[in-house]
Amino acid sequence: MKYRRIPDETIQRLPMYLRAFSLLEGEKELTVCSRQLAVRLGLNPHQIRKDLSYFGNFGRPGVGYPVQTTARRIRHILKLDKTQKTALVGAGRLGTALVAYPGFSSFNLEIAAVFDSDPKKIGKKIGHLTIESAARLAGLKKRNIHLAILAVPADAAQSVTDKLIKAGVRGLLNFSPGRLKVPASVKKIDIDLASQLSILPYYL
Amino acid sequence: MKYRRIPDETIQRLPMYLRAFSLLEGEKELTVCSRQLAVRLGLNPHQIRKDLSYFGNFGRPGVGYPVQTTARRIRHILKLDKTQKTALVGAGRLGTALVAYPGFSSFNLEIAAVFDSDPKKIGKKIGHLTIESAARLAGLKKRNIHLAILAVPADAAQSVTDKLIKAGVRGLLNFSPGRLKVPASVKKIDIDLASQLSILPYYL
Repeated sequence: MKYRRIPDETIQRLPMYLRAFSLLEGEKELTVCSRQLAVRLGLNPHQIRKDLSYFGNFGRPGVGYPVQTTARRIRHILKLDKTQKTALVGAGRLGTALVAYPGFSSFNLEIAAVFDSDPKKIGKKIGHLTIESAARLAGLKKRNIHLAILAVPADAAQSVTDKLIKAGVRGLLNFSPGRLKVPASVKKIDIDLASQLSILPYYL
Repeated sequence: MKYRRIPDETIQRLPMYLRAFSLLEGEKELTVCSRQLAVRLGLNPHQIRKDLSYFGNFGRPGVGYPVQTTARRIRHILKLDKTQKTALVGAGRLGTALVAYPGFSSFNLEIAAVFDSDPKKIGKKIGHLTIESAARLAGLKKRNIHLAILAVPADAAQSVTDKLIKAGVRGLLNFSPGRLKVPASVKKIDIDLASQLSILPYYL
């Protein structure tokens, strides 16, 4: 329960720290100080020290953070020290690209099931996964899948979300534009590609 | 210059407001009050009034915001009242999905050119676009393209970014993980898909 007090902004930076520590692990570095990390990540060293201090005192003044221990610790905090299975709903172009996305595995994330409502897609393969009927979403709990990626058209997003939550999903990465209602017990992260791109012209 | 003082957080919410006002336009609504908008968007009405107040006094107490005028105004502020052409670099699965992504056109955003460094891809079609050699990036300025989407592998990201900036690109939507260095005159928005997904298990 104590983790609940950590600001979301800190949690959001942890994957970036984990990526840096994992790289340092690969480079066989034993320790790294917050100043070196700050240069790598383009952050303020004070920010880094503050973020990492939420999880106990990993670092030693004048020595820095032990690379392996800290990487392991962050992995543990983010629950990425075991494979986290994710369902993907929506086997369109974006969904298909996500199944093949190479970046997930380095975080121990695995897309373990793909669903679509289009009868023409059901039964076909994406990579090593067979597209399943959306009617089978109810079975997610039994398969121990509690995370889902939503890559369906906007008009289907809320009803699919409701089904996912009924099936025990408690974390949702949502690519559908518009507002999705989820209970407070479900963590939802929205990635609205068009909104993000539409901000750029303002700065021209 | 006065726009520079608007907080980035407000700018980031404008596409959401624009989407809501565009929908209301389609529904032939004449006015909408901040309270109704708040319900649609799941935001605080005070927040909405504050955000929209940065751009002058659109709304009238007791009447609300005139739908058409406000939509037009936000479009103008975001420079989305004309088509904004974007280059896409990286014709992999993610890049291909982005070219076909249906959400961009409603914001007047158009992927107008696709580049890749793989000789096997150059000359092939994605939708109505022909994949061009990355060597042709230098011509973007002449083609009046100042925005780019980066969907290349991490190890190519910085060198492609440098080329894009040299070619006059001033807004960048970056899907490559890791840190990209850009000058202060360039606006960069990072979408790190793996980092976003990796946050969810923490909340399980």
